[in-house]
Amino acid sequence: MTVLVNGITCKNPSWVQANDIYYSGMHIRGNTSNAMGSSVTLAFVFQIPGLNTLGISLARLDFAPWGVILPHTHPHATEILTILEGQIQVGFVTSNPENHHFSKVLNKGDVFVFPVNLVHYQRNVGNTYAVAMVALSSQNPGVIPIGNVSFGSKPDISTDILAKALQVSDDVISNIQTKF
Amino acid sequence: MTVLVNGITCKNPSWVQANDIYYSGMHIRGNTSNAMGSSVTLAFVFQIPGLNTLGISLARLDFAPWGVILPHTHPHATEILTILEGQIQVGFVTSNPENHHFSKVLNKGDVFVFPVNLVHYQRNVGNTYAVAMVALSSQNPGVIPIGNVSFGSKPDISTDILAKALQVSDDVISNIQTKF
Amino acid sequence: MTVLVNGITCKNPSWVQANDIYYSGMHIRGNTSNAMGSSVTLAFVFQIPGLNTLGISLARLDFAPWGVILPHTHPHATEILTILEGQIQVGFVTSNPENHHFSKVLNKGDVFVFPVNLVHYQRNVGNTYAVAMVALSSQNPGVIPIGNVSFGSKPDISTDILAKALQVSDDVISNIQTKF
Amino acid sequence: MTVLVNGITCKNPSWVQANDIYYSGMHIRGNTSNAMGSSVTLAFVFQIPGLNTLGISLARLDFAPWGVILPHTHPHATEILTILEGQIQVGFVTSNPENHHFSKVLNKGDVFVFPVNLVHYQRNVGNTYAVAMVALSSQNPGVIPIGNVSFGSKPDISTDILAKALQVSDDVISNIQTKF
Amino acid sequence: MTVLVNGITCKNPSWVQANDIYYSGMHIRGNTSNAMGSSVTLAFVFQIPGLNTLGISLARLDFAPWGVILPHTHPHATEILTILEGQIQVGFVTSNPENHHFSKVLNKGDVFVFPVNLVHYQRNVGNTYAVAMVALSSQNPGVIPIGNVSFGSKPDISTDILAKALQVSDDVISNIQTKF
Amino acid sequence: MTVLVNGITCKNPSWVQANDIYYSGMHIRGNTSNAMGSSVTLAFVFQIPGLNTLGISLARLDFAPWGVILPHTHPHATEILTILEGQIQVGFVTSNPENHHFSKVLNKGDVFVFPVNLVHYQRNVGNTYAVAMVALSSQNPGVIPIGNVSFGSKPDISTDILAKALQVSDDVISNIQTKF
Repeated sequence: MTVLVNGITCKNPSWVQANDIYYSGMHIRGNTSNAMGSSVTLAFVFQIPGLNTLGISLARLDFAPWGVILPHTHPHATEILTILEGQIQVGFVTSNPENHHFSKVLNKGDVFVFPVNLVHYQRNVGNTYAVAMVALSSQNPGVIPIGNVSFGSKPDISTDILAKALQVSDDVISNIQTKF
Repeated sequence: MTVLVNGITCKNPSWVQANDIYYSGMHIRGNTSNAMGSSVTLAFVFQIPGLNTLGISLARLDFAPWGVILPHTHPHATEILTILEGQIQVGFVTSNPENHHFSKVLNKGDVFVFPVNLVHYQRNVGNTYAVAMVALSSQNPGVIPIGNVSFGSKPDISTDILAKALQVSDDVISNIQTKF
Repeated sequence: MTVLVNGITCKNPSWVQANDIYYSGMHIRGNTSNAMGSSVTLAFVFQIPGLNTLGISLARLDFAPWGVILPHTHPHATEILTILEGQIQVGFVTSNPENHHFSKVLNKGDVFVFPVNLVHYQRNVGNTYAVAMVALSSQNPGVIPIGNVSFGSKPDISTDILAKALQVSDDVISNIQTKF
Repeated sequence: MTVLVNGITCKNPSWVQANDIYYSGMHIRGNTSNAMGSSVTLAFVFQIPGLNTLGISLARLDFAPWGVILPHTHPHATEILTILEGQIQVGFVTSNPENHHFSKVLNKGDVFVFPVNLVHYQRNVGNTYAVAMVALSSQNPGVIPIGNVSFGSKPDISTDILAKALQVSDDVISNIQTKF
Repeated sequence: MTVLVNGITCKNPSWVQANDIYYSGMHIRGNTSNAMGSSVTLAFVFQIPGLNTLGISLARLDFAPWGVILPHTHPHATEILTILEGQIQVGFVTSNPENHHFSKVLNKGDVFVFPVNLVHYQRNVGNTYAVAMVALSSQNPGVIPIGNVSFGSKPDISTDILAKALQVSDDVISNIQTKF
Repeated sequence: MTVLVNGITCKNPSWVQANDIYYSGMHIRGNTSNAMGSSVTLAFVFQIPGLNTLGISLARLDFAPWGVILPHTHPHATEILTILEGQIQVGFVTSNPENHHFSKVLNKGDVFVFPVNLVHYQRNVGNTYAVAMVALSSQNPGVIPIGNVSFGSKPDISTDILAKALQVSDDVISNIQTKF
């Protein structure tokens, strides 16, 4: 029998082993040969079952030169990022009415915080590959990429809503939707 | 002296009066003579100071025929909506990897739930003015309109990041940014 | 197999449908042909299963002229009320030692807050039918009517305890208990 | 300057002393020469300032033979009671729709739990003085006596509301209100 | 079928009985004929199943003259202690960097608070048997005795780590480990 | 005026700057020329004020060959560790009654979780310097080193209590206490 806690299978405590709270491979460069030139390696509760209820998780970010991780939110977590290699620009935008855009270019050893639920992004602005480690304040932070949920949802959001949201013509939106 | 709790001034409990937990005017039709054909009347902690720490708030939504409230998130709250007049289509998109688009046309007396932090929208699909009341599970739900934080932040997010996010050319983005 | 979360059946997330977060009929006048001249239509987690864990719910209150909703508490929720039609007097009493009675006559469009767990009531003080919508900061707010739990419990509370609580004779209490 | 946390003055952590987390006199019999034949000695955050934010508190209950603590709720706390001397009957009533009355006669060394927010009472059913220690799951549990908030609020609740709540005539209510 | 909540079997609410929230025997002196001259009688969720999710529990502490309860932490609970008989010295040590040792000799009727997670101890400093009742702010406070987890874990922690931790030779540690 | 939240100065939200959520230098090797052969570089709320209320923090751990971080607890946080360089043995011990010692030798790229409040340690078991990054599920995790709070508290814990806790003579304890 499988008991779900927070939607995740929960093991009988007496069966827990060191391997349930262990993961490996976070030193391996992710494959950045893709359109965004970036890669995300997750260590969430799906990878480390013993994290369930413990309120923390990790991810490794890899960037080709000028690679980017597009604007997204984590609906359940603050994110704290540390640069291991390279030079990365980071930014987030605050909620209404300010919509203030906090942004900073980070170098090796720099740390930056993305407060819970705000739209944020990272991109390589150096000439080399870049690597960052991030920690998140949930075992299951969730990922909501603004582009995907707007233009790549199943089924599509009505063209006219998105056209008004971006103040463009319906044709522009239809064109974008075909790419997602 | 002013003490802030959750960033809001907190009154000495012995000075609280009925007016601190009272608000009026939620029966008044909002002005929908604007580009979106919609209006939002808030009853958050900023309007009702006594809501602080109580974890709930309200808003009234008005729609001209075919008015729309554009895709946005509430970073701290689930929203539950009731149609008072008219016919409104509502929808939200789930997080990665599904990006499932839940959508439904609602009529008078219908209730719909937007789970915390998910991108959602509402639009009038009837021939008449429409009105909805929404309740939110926080005294300060926050509002993050996807369009505004993407294209109207201060200062702007770099054109190339948004161009990649939407899979369009930089020109399209620059054009959008000038409108916000 | 049925998994209970907070005592409510919890559906496998991949089986959730729009209907699990949808409800209808909140525009229908409740039947107030009863001793109290009032009616409560609930939209709690029992009516909208998808509300589970989301921390919010709704109810519609209908009042015949001079109808009343008797003093009660919600053990898990703050309540925020909006008058849709008519004129309603609302009130609540604070805890010891003040036992301050906050009360106000509300008209159409007025909003009032009943802080979590305090004893409160509503009654129609106009000449017409009255309607209010309330939102509550829990998917399962609970309802504890002071009269029912005092005089209508199964089995009865001892007459002498209630007699002392109300400072009346045992006969008065026995008489009340027979009515519940 | 005084900073309030949870409405209680919060001391600078570096000024805390052992006396801030200390209290004495819980072995002293309370004065039960009163109408209820009972006495409650509190050790809440108001008596032990260092309890603030720690989520627990205590009280000592004394009962003359047949003394009673009338039906009340604690809006923020579960209560767990231990009998030190004598024989006490305890009871509580669950919320709607069951209104089940759990009741039990307890003897020395017995422990009983009153779940958070439910209406409960205690009374001496032995021939001797009785003593109980209770612990509560909040530093500030709050006390809402059903009789006092119903009939002794300032100002009074309207007679007709209470008359309907108890299904008695207005005269009976007016008579009760004069006693509070 | 057995559903676990917080790792504890959770009963169907409609099957709860008064006995699920009842316990007896807290007036019985514990057996202190052991090396530590002390005894702990628990009333945690394992003894009172109905405590689950209610956030409180109890224990009775018995001490032979000069009996002691060795330094330990409760990972999930603040503890509040009341002396029923005798004279007990209590103490706890704060976290880094202060490591301040709060200590006090308590007599009958005295109350003392051990904030959540700090290392604390109790010992009889009178000439008689001593008894204390403690309440804890969790239904499952957990117990982590510093000596046992350091020297009696299964398997042992490496001798050299503990030798450095105590600034003694490996021989001293090996000798201690054989006793646990 | 300074407002403390969680004991930390809380800045007016409108004065927050990117530097309040930024930190640098996490790439710099800590000085391990000390008795333990280890160094901890913190990025807690005291170093990054903007972390307050966000529930996460970081630290960098450096180890000389055979350097060690002695057994300790974090009273408010789970810890998740990633090896950047070298080979580190980690371990923690569960609470009563099992006192199970989970232990594992970790290599570059390995991740391990220390559940909240459990006693844990790390030591270099390779031939090279070692580096780990840890994230913690609180902005202010707290640090309680078992050795320091037992033998280095101010003032000292009584020798006889510690002698019983370690099952050694008073002389051994006195000797240890002089070293702290």
